Amino acid sequence: MTTLQQPLAVLDLEGVLTPEIWEAVAEHTGIDVLRRTTRDEPDIDVLFAGRVEALDAAGIKLDLILKVIEGMSPLEGAVDFLQELRSQMPVLVLSDTFEQFGRPLAAKLGQPAMLCHRLIEQDGRLAGYQLRISNQKQRAVEAFQSLNYRVAAVGDSYNDVTMLAQADIGVLFRASANVAAEYPQLPSCSSYHDLLKMIDEWIAAA
Amino acid sequence: MTTLQQPLAVLDLEGVLTPEIWEAVAEHTGIDVLRRTTRDEPDIDVLFAGRVEALDAAGIKLDLILKVIEGMSPLEGAVDFLQELRSQMPVLVLSDTFEQFGRPLAAKLGQPAMLCHRLIEQDGRLAGYQLRISNQKQRAVEAFQSLNYRVAAVGDSYNDVTMLAQADIGVLFRASANVAAEYPQLPSCSSYHDLLKMIDEWIAAA
Repeated sequence: MTTLQQPLAVLDLEGVLTPEIWEAVAEHTGIDVLRRTTRDEPDIDVLFAGRVEALDAAGIKLDLILKVIEGMSPLEGAVDFLQELRSQMPVLVLSDTFEQFGRPLAAKLGQPAMLCHRLIEQDGRLAGYQLRISNQKQRAVEAFQSLNYRVAAVGDSYNDVTMLAQADIGVLFRASANVAAEYPQLPSCSSYHDLLKMIDEWIAAA
Repeated sequence: MTTLQQPLAVLDLEGVLTPEIWEAVAEHTGIDVLRRTTRDEPDIDVLFAGRVEALDAAGIKLDLILKVIEGMSPLEGAVDFLQELRSQMPVLVLSDTFEQFGRPLAAKLGQPAMLCHRLIEQDGRLAGYQLRISNQKQRAVEAFQSLNYRVAAVGDSYNDVTMLAQADIGVLFRASANVAAEYPQLPSCSSYHDLLKMIDEWIAAA
């Protein structure tokens, strides 16, 4: 009789299932400082403060940003990939975006459970943000491991690496060259087909 | 500036979103001992051992049971309720069923992340089962609270009460008379409309 642990998967949102939200907002507003992502700035507190400040200084309201996000689509193949993975195991999305920003994209992805942070709005203005907890991605993986799950994690950027290292298998998906070069110990791939195969093989090898 | 905790919901499966799986299997196979549920027997280890033994003794294979489960439908209104709740917050299903049994129902519910146990099959036979961890529902609520979520939990039966007590709000949904009588301190309701309203009010009151 087998006594294998049950698998569970956690996925980053931007770069893994959708394009980068802030790049789209930068494109739309012309505010170039918004183009910086966790790929460029590992400290999300520094990154978030700069983004929220820049938008508020430019008088850009939440409504406009949500309109930009509602115009975004998941990456090609992401919905099918997610559907396939969810038919095999519980899947959660772990994102350092804000719940307000994540919602329109979650709806297009078939509403996976998404753990993220929260924007504080005041009369439609971006008044600040609230990190739910620090290092939330790694801590979520630890929490699922404490519930006796073997965890597969997928991410593309600096804010994913503690999660990827904590997981039972952590995969870099379409990571930028600098991230991939800094973490050569992490397996990596660039297509959903290869990602599903990698997860299948991980399950079979258990 | 508000610094409210973000909400997250956990829902029992059978009795809350779908009919009782084992009652359907009992109906189909005529094995009456299968009619016992966690409503009748609070110790799921006793309950599960009896069920697996009874089925195996009757020569009933996994295939037949899965066919019965594939013929089941979510409770009326459950899919819309779940869709509505998932548009508001992360939602997970916490079920003491086996992942093999839960899968066909999860597919009909739009594939929510479902944390459950596992059946051990051997050549199509039910060879045993593997509880992922004991008291998994309460422990999942604790895990999400440790990730700084305020947790709403919904259940109907004995195996839900530790989860309901641990949650920031625990609601009995269509509970049997004996469960409701034993836990008068838990709020209860019997329609999805009232349940959504109760959760809305809980969020507004935070």
